[in-house]
Amino acid sequence: MNEYRSVGQRVPKLDAADKATGKARYVQDLRLPGMLEAAVLRSRVPHGRIVSVDVSGAWQVPGVRAVLAAKDIPARRWGYAKDTSALKGDRVRRIGDELAAVAAVNVEAAVEACARIKVEIEALPAVFDMEEALAAGAPVLHEERGSNLVQTHLYEHGDVKAGFAKAAKVVEGLFRLPAQQHGCLGPAGAVAEWDGNGRLTIYDPTQIPFLVQRDLAEALGVAPAEIRLVQPCIGGGFGARLDLYPHEAIVALLARKANAPVRILFSRDEDFQTDPVRPRTVVRMKTAAAADGTLLAREADVVVDCGAYVSWGAMTPVVMVNTFGSFYRCPAAKFRARTVTTNTQPTGAFRGFGNPELLFALESQMDELARELRMDPIEFRLKNANSPEETTPGGARITSCGFREVLEAVRKRLRRPAKSPDAHVARGTGVAAVFHVGGGARIYRSDGCGATVKVDDFGKVTVVVGATDIGQGMETAMAQIAAEEMDVPVSAVRVATNADTDIRPWDVGVHASRTTFIAGNAVRLAARDAKKQVEDARRTLGLPADAPLDKVVRSEHFRQKGRLIHASAYYDPPTAMADKTNHGNVSAAYTWGCHGVEVEVDLETGKVDVKRVIAAHDVGRAINPMHAEGQIEGGVLQGIGYALFEECVLKDGRIQNGHFLDYRMPGPRDMPEIVPVLVETDDPEGPFGAKGLGEAPIVPVAAAVANAIFDATGVRLRELPMIPERVWRAVRGNR
Amino acid sequence: MNEYRSVGQRVPKLDAADKATGKARYVQDLRLPGMLEAAVLRSRVPHGRIVSVDVSGAWQVPGVRAVLAAKDIPARRWGYAKDTSALKGDRVRRIGDELAAVAAVNVEAAVEACARIKVEIEALPAVFDMEEALAAGAPVLHEERGSNLVQTHLYEHGDVKAGFAKAAKVVEGLFRLPAQQHGCLGPAGAVAEWDGNGRLTIYDPTQIPFLVQRDLAEALGVAPAEIRLVQPCIGGGFGARLDLYPHEAIVALLARKANAPVRILFSRDEDFQTDPVRPRTVVRMKTAAAADGTLLAREADVVVDCGAYVSWGAMTPVVMVNTFGSFYRCPAAKFRARTVTTNTQPTGAFRGFGNPELLFALESQMDELARELRMDPIEFRLKNANSPEETTPGGARITSCGFREVLEAVRKRLRRPAKSPDAHVARGTGVAAVFHVGGGARIYRSDGCGATVKVDDFGKVTVVVGATDIGQGMETAMAQIAAEEMDVPVSAVRVATNADTDIRPWDVGVHASRTTFIAGNAVRLAARDAKKQVEDARRTLGLPADAPLDKVVRSEHFRQKGRLIHASAYYDPPTAMADKTNHGNVSAAYTWGCHGVEVEVDLETGKVDVKRVIAAHDVGRAINPMHAEGQIEGGVLQGIGYALFEECVLKDGRIQNGHFLDYRMPGPRDMPEIVPVLVETDDPEGPFGAKGLGEAPIVPVAAAVANAIFDATGVRLRELPMIPERVWRAVRGNR
Repeated sequence: MNEYRSVGQRVPKLDAADKATGKARYVQDLRLPGMLEAAVLRSRVPHGRIVSVDVSGAWQVPGVRAVLAAKDIPARRWGYAKDTSALKGDRVRRIGDELAAVAAVNVEAAVEACARIKVEIEALPAVFDMEEALAAGAPVLHEERGSNLVQTHLYEHGDVKAGFAKAAKVVEGLFRLPAQQHGCLGPAGAVAEWDGNGRLTIYDPTQIPFLVQRDLAEALGVAPAEIRLVQPCIGGGFGARLDLYPHEAIVALLARKANAPVRILFSRDEDFQTDPVRPRTVVRMKTAAAADGTLLAREADVVVDCGAYVSWGAMTPVVMVNTFGSFYRCPAAKFRARTVTTNTQPTGAFRGFGNPELLFALESQMDELARELRMDPIEFRLKNANSPEETTPGGARITSCGFREVLEAVRKRLRRPAKSPDAHVARGTGVAAVFHVGGGARIYRSDGCGATVKVDDFGKVTVVVGATDIGQGMETAMAQIAAEEMDVPVSAVRVATNADTDIRPWDVGVHASRTTFIAGNAVRLAARDAKKQVEDARRTLGLPADAPLDKVVRSEHFRQKGRLIHASAYYDPPTAMADKTNHGNVSAAYTWGCHGVEVEVDLETGKVDVKRVIAAHDVGRAINPMHAEGQIEGGVLQGIGYALFEECVLKDGRIQNGHFLDYRMPGPRDMPEIVPVLVETDDPEGPFGAKGLGEAPIVPVAAAVANAIFDATGVRLRELPMIPERVWRAVRGNR
Repeated sequence: MNEYRSVGQRVPKLDAADKATGKARYVQDLRLPGMLEAAVLRSRVPHGRIVSVDVSGAWQVPGVRAVLAAKDIPARRWGYAKDTSALKGDRVRRIGDELAAVAAVNVEAAVEACARIKVEIEALPAVFDMEEALAAGAPVLHEERGSNLVQTHLYEHGDVKAGFAKAAKVVEGLFRLPAQQHGCLGPAGAVAEWDGNGRLTIYDPTQIPFLVQRDLAEALGVAPAEIRLVQPCIGGGFGARLDLYPHEAIVALLARKANAPVRILFSRDEDFQTDPVRPRTVVRMKTAAAADGTLLAREADVVVDCGAYVSWGAMTPVVMVNTFGSFYRCPAAKFRARTVTTNTQPTGAFRGFGNPELLFALESQMDELARELRMDPIEFRLKNANSPEETTPGGARITSCGFREVLEAVRKRLRRPAKSPDAHVARGTGVAAVFHVGGGARIYRSDGCGATVKVDDFGKVTVVVGATDIGQGMETAMAQIAAEEMDVPVSAVRVATNADTDIRPWDVGVHASRTTFIAGNAVRLAARDAKKQVEDARRTLGLPADAPLDKVVRSEHFRQKGRLIHASAYYDPPTAMADKTNHGNVSAAYTWGCHGVEVEVDLETGKVDVKRVIAAHDVGRAINPMHAEGQIEGGVLQGIGYALFEECVLKDGRIQNGHFLDYRMPGPRDMPEIVPVLVETDDPEGPFGAKGLGEAPIVPVAAAVANAIFDATGVRLRELPMIPERVWRAVRGNR
């Protein structure tokens, strides 16, 4: 039973019609009067010393309005490790590094002008493999750090040695995870424009408007107050837009130089070669259990590839640690992750943020242990499952917890398939579970979001919220939450999505499945205040309890000494950043999920077909069940890509499959039957009980598929993607 | 002495650089993807019955995407008298009436398509003169009203008959005022676009965003909540954008029909023939004084031309009454104004809104009486001047009043010119005073304005205000007020001007010199609240009193259970709408001004040169003295145009001088030496003591010039503009 009127309804996405009919405006659609187009000259060598950059040829192309090389711009570095810059002046560290940039009246002229810039680079030895990069004698990318090691993340709880010593079963393995492309339908881009007072407006489909405001100011050497960021409609994010990237600084510098608006748009080639990717990761893991199936200890040693410059990819161990220290009741755990620079494209955040990488190993080993122990894999997980109202050794304070329910939901629905009539087709099932943050993740000093609510004379409710819609449906979720709290229909609410940073209240950005939870709470608080203002007015005016909203607002507005209805709120969850030992309650809620998959493996070709996925998730409360199911479906399909198809194939640092023909993302024909199961646990802190769901559905897919392949074939695959060749070789090797 | 840091400073206009360099974006600069351009087929006959409109020819023009005639749209009427509509289906009532409209891929195709629409109209007798229109047997424009009389405004106080009976001197005259074009540099236009949910966004340089939202909804038959209005940069207003006009509905209807964004832009021809004008007005007035110079009684009978449809021109008597009942201490006054429809272009609001018309008569007669009484004209005015803290018979509660000061300021500075060396050049001086609203004018149920203030982590203060900038400098004034109240530099403030109606708080619109006073108070209240939030945070956090703003805000934001600084306020002045007898305190403050002018009259040609203008105004407090002086200079020059050059010359209802070559607006060479004098009276209700100044400077110019011409030549001109022919004829008639 749904006690709510708007929350819990299958409201279609408010932007669906505009997106389906082409009315939505992406950065690709922006046209400012007098706008120029930019192109960037990029390094073709993966590692080298820049001897000279001669831009004079660029000016011979008609229509060129600005040309910049490193010497023309302030030498400013930014980023987590302050190791990147807009244009590179002394060293290139990967194919794609920015050497010069041109703004011209059209993109053809800009590209032609780039082609006429003469660059001399003295090649240096390069390193593309992260374990080689850690080895002694490897070429060092950033000499100021002395080696390619960026950081070591350590975590420990319990007596790991004792745990392994008393184990009945120990499994151990080496897992290899590839670089994965986000493949956003809208490639990166931005439009920059300086006004007559020297203030910059940047139209930028970033996921972190307020952090870009600050970081771009640092990159440009201007005050953050002089920067205004407006997000156009965003053609996908998935984590790819979570940092300040060189093109954002370049376009601003070109616009200042040309004294005109300038747009930069990545081609699909640039997107594949230059946009951040999910990091290549190597996980060495060992897990131990007692004979009765009780987990005793786990240990992992992880290496994460940062690529050439340190961005969010380097922070994925933070999420790994959270899972490693808190998922299942495991009395002892020890974790080390090392992040490493290589001469490859920088790695960033990507849906799940380290969790798909770690969980591929962890949930593969849970399957292995269950088989070793001859236990049903769900029974084994139930035996070790977290429960409501417990605090994990990692520091997570669990409140609502539907772990048992999601496991039972899969058990109930996952059927053992009949044997295939084709002798060369093996069928099997597998399960994997997921633990993820569901109430924000405090990786920054604030994990908060602000919101304002205005009610106008016509009863229209306008929500201005700091949060960002990247296609995930933030707009609709916020409208439902505001509608519920204000007791108006959803159609009476407009959410001003992705507006101007000057006008919007602050938000840390869209990541970590936080928006429905955090922004939803902010909107709910603001709406509650607005509702109270309306109620106060109604009572003061002596209007009946059933007086229409618009009438109350107008009566309050148009009386002597009238008032408008306007409320603002800020919500920052009751969490803490992880401490120096990487323990802490970083999220205000946690979520669990379990996927049960059924696969067919063609033993002759190694091709794996995922036929059916039961995907049960503890969503706290589904603000919009249709969209929650959509998140699950999208996550499952993207997870199938990660499991079976996707990887960046490099040769000497250059991507070999840098377009959609060769980089195999899953399409409609790869879509299995997906059975989403929404488990509602009514989280005490979430808005109307909701928890975040954006990432969890991608996380367990690869492990569940690998476990199903094992079930079908008896071979254990520990490297993604599980392409036909790898499966075929493994099956053949097993025979 | 200025006790303020930002208020009272000569801060350059914040949008000056953008406007001077062409960066400012007007509706003429907007480009939306897939945007079509509109053209309107207009009536060439002034009055007629529409027999048929055949649009089939329009479709033969390549690139046409939508064609509309009256039969294709809902029959909806709007406006003060509900007598106008988007497209006319049964009757045309003026040259320029809208018969059909086309949207096409470019404006040439749209215009060509309009040319191919076949219209049959049966001509009806027309009437162009408002006094003829009132006569029995005149053609009636709107038969449902029975006659061309729209409304009669009556006002009376004291015993007028007795006043005239005991008078020592009575002057009486008939004054004729022409139609005046606003001549905005940016002609009218709008862009309309419907989203996939059936919501309309209109980019419209209107002066009344929130009233257009409501009125356009009525015109289109949609809910007001479904309309979002965004104002681009506005290329002048002066009252011309104060109503909903047919083109705003037409462009929305075309966009809906074409399912694409559509823009309509007026050509200069259309602007001259179709945009509203200051109404032709006839004033019959009589004023009486005692021998000692005490005013005894005044009486006026006024006729105001509405043109073909009733818009704001019909409301100018409301301001006339206010002046007539309150300006000078006059114990008895009787006023009648009749508003009339004629087959001419509709009349609207124009800076001063009836006051320049009425005051031309009133201040001419003050001059006549002074001369009859052999009193110095300033002495005569001083004798009858209003004083602080009095309530006038008309109901105006006067608080601050610098009337005596402005009169003395002119007396001190106005020099009698030496005789011209040219015998045919006569020199003279004249004065005229003005009384005007300076604290809003309640002509609508609310005269309020809302504002919000946000302070971000960098100490940047963003003001979102309902008020509209039409070039008058609202943005800068609000920034100064917010800066003063927040104790930050003006450069730390950004005013989000003319944003989206969804986001901005409500405002009644920009008119009646109200913005600095009303919006200024709203901004001040919001800033005060924001400042208090900062102060509370500082104390709670234990930061020192001199801690920088940004540091306090960040500390408050990033602490546990942090908060953002966000405040909102609404200010509605303590005033009342005029009662049924047209008495009332409609404004929270009143202003006075006095102009002293020096002219040269060429007796051979009748040409009048204004050489010097002393313009003293009670501004309460000059928030920005440079801009206050700019308002005075602009008003004086526009007043000179009204006095000497400008009138719409009609022939059979068609404007004969409908472009800038023939319609003589004053230019740089007509600019006299202007000596602005700012009298500061520190109004108790105004923000930092300020009062409105937008309109007053235009009001007394014509009378002052006429009085100076009398001084120079001995002839009394009672018809504007005082073009050489009229002056020459009068001078010759006098000899």
